[in-house]
Amino acid sequence: QCNLSGWWENDLGSKMHVATVDQQGNFTGEYITAVSSTQKPIQPSPLIGSQHLDKDGQCTFGFTVNWKKFSDSTAVFVGQCFAEDDGKEVLQTSWLLREKVDSLPSDWKATR
Amino acid sequence: QCNLSGWWENDLGSKMHVATVDQQGNFTGEYITAVSSTQKPIQPSPLIGSQHLDKDGQCTFGFTVNWKKFSDSTAVFVGQCFAEDDGKEVLQTSWLLREKVDSLPSDWKATR
Amino acid sequence: QCNLSGWWENDLGSKMHVATVDQQGNFTGEYITAVSSTQKPIQPSPLIGSQHLDKDGQCTFGFTVNWKKFSDSTAVFVGQCFAEDDGKEVLQTSWLLREKVDSLPSDWKATR
Amino acid sequence: QCNLSGWWENDLGSKMHVATVDQQGNFTGEYITAVSSTQKPIQPSPLIGSQHLDKDGQCTFGFTVNWKKFSDSTAVFVGQCFAEDDGKEVLQTSWLLREKVDSLPSDWKATR
Repeated sequence: QCNLSGWWENDLGSKMHVATVDQQGNFTGEYITAVSSTQKPIQPSPLIGSQHLDKDGQCTFGFTVNWKKFSDSTAVFVGQCFAEDDGKEVLQTSWLLREKVDSLPSDWKATR
Repeated sequence: QCNLSGWWENDLGSKMHVATVDQQGNFTGEYITAVSSTQKPIQPSPLIGSQHLDKDGQCTFGFTVNWKKFSDSTAVFVGQCFAEDDGKEVLQTSWLLREKVDSLPSDWKATR
Repeated sequence: QCNLSGWWENDLGSKMHVATVDQQGNFTGEYITAVSSTQKPIQPSPLIGSQHLDKDGQCTFGFTVNWKKFSDSTAVFVGQCFAEDDGKEVLQTSWLLREKVDSLPSDWKATR
Repeated sequence: QCNLSGWWENDLGSKMHVATVDQQGNFTGEYITAVSSTQKPIQPSPLIGSQHLDKDGQCTFGFTVNWKKFSDSTAVFVGQCFAEDDGKEVLQTSWLLREKVDSLPSDWKATR
């Protein structure tokens, strides 16, 4: 039913693990990115977010990844779970990555 | 120092309240949007997210808003805190709004 | 060498035809979308844009599609051409779709 | 009536000049950006695009800026013209900036 708990992997090879989803739909977990725009070694990073609990198993969700272990950036992901005909669950997500910039005049280029 | 705790208001008149930020940088709160793409009455909606705890007071952050009280959509925000010369703190954010769609072929138009 | 002239098809089944690219990199063509957020029948739509003419065959490009034949929306695409090992050329693009809204207070939801 | 011809300036101080708009809605012009993510000196850059010709003066439009004079990037803008009560015309736009990357595995970070 579109419970995000468990392991997921995307096309780029990034993996995430979502622990239990509570009754409000909140969850925590860990994101292990396969790609990075920094030079420092990638480390598993904490994620925290929320999902709907619709009974049709196609709920939308969102979460934040805090890259503090190797970067001062933050990413957010938003998406929806889809159940395919063979019972396989697929997540479709979009994301934004915010890099820290020095000052407001550089704000225009901080997000990709 | 760029602690998100407290009340914030954006240009559109949306307001949010962030409760305490814990030692990992995680926080919860409430988002009261001034705008909506649904017809149902807007209600205060729970948010959950994470911020960096950099000492320069210009940290990046992200959070998820679950609109479950009046919609099956989810929004994510990512941004950075800036301290202006007069000591006023300003948040610069970008967002994505995910609407629930029926099936994968409609996925292309689900996010704005 | 990453000349956009010719026919291209994307994962969703949308097709585009780019006529000749001139010496400045400008081009016109036609976009036949497979997906639409309007109810009216889809029609081939004019596109106009510009590409770099780098000799490495991996140039970036952008173009605008004017959906005037069945909609008051406009789309823009930006991307890069990549030559794969087998000589096949692949375009990677991102897009924004602007729908017409009644007034400035609705501007926040006009783009997806 | 929402004819883009003429000079426009945005909040960041970037300016653009649009020459005549033809009967199909196509136009060319020049974009003088106030901000850049490259080190090279900024130069006026050619733009090409298309607008709707709706009679209500609130048409949508899009255009491509080719930064070839100092960069291998390309930007696209999409937006809508609004007439304010005092007769002043305002453009609301969103944009994507595509930077050239070496290979497909870096594609995820190429657009902001």
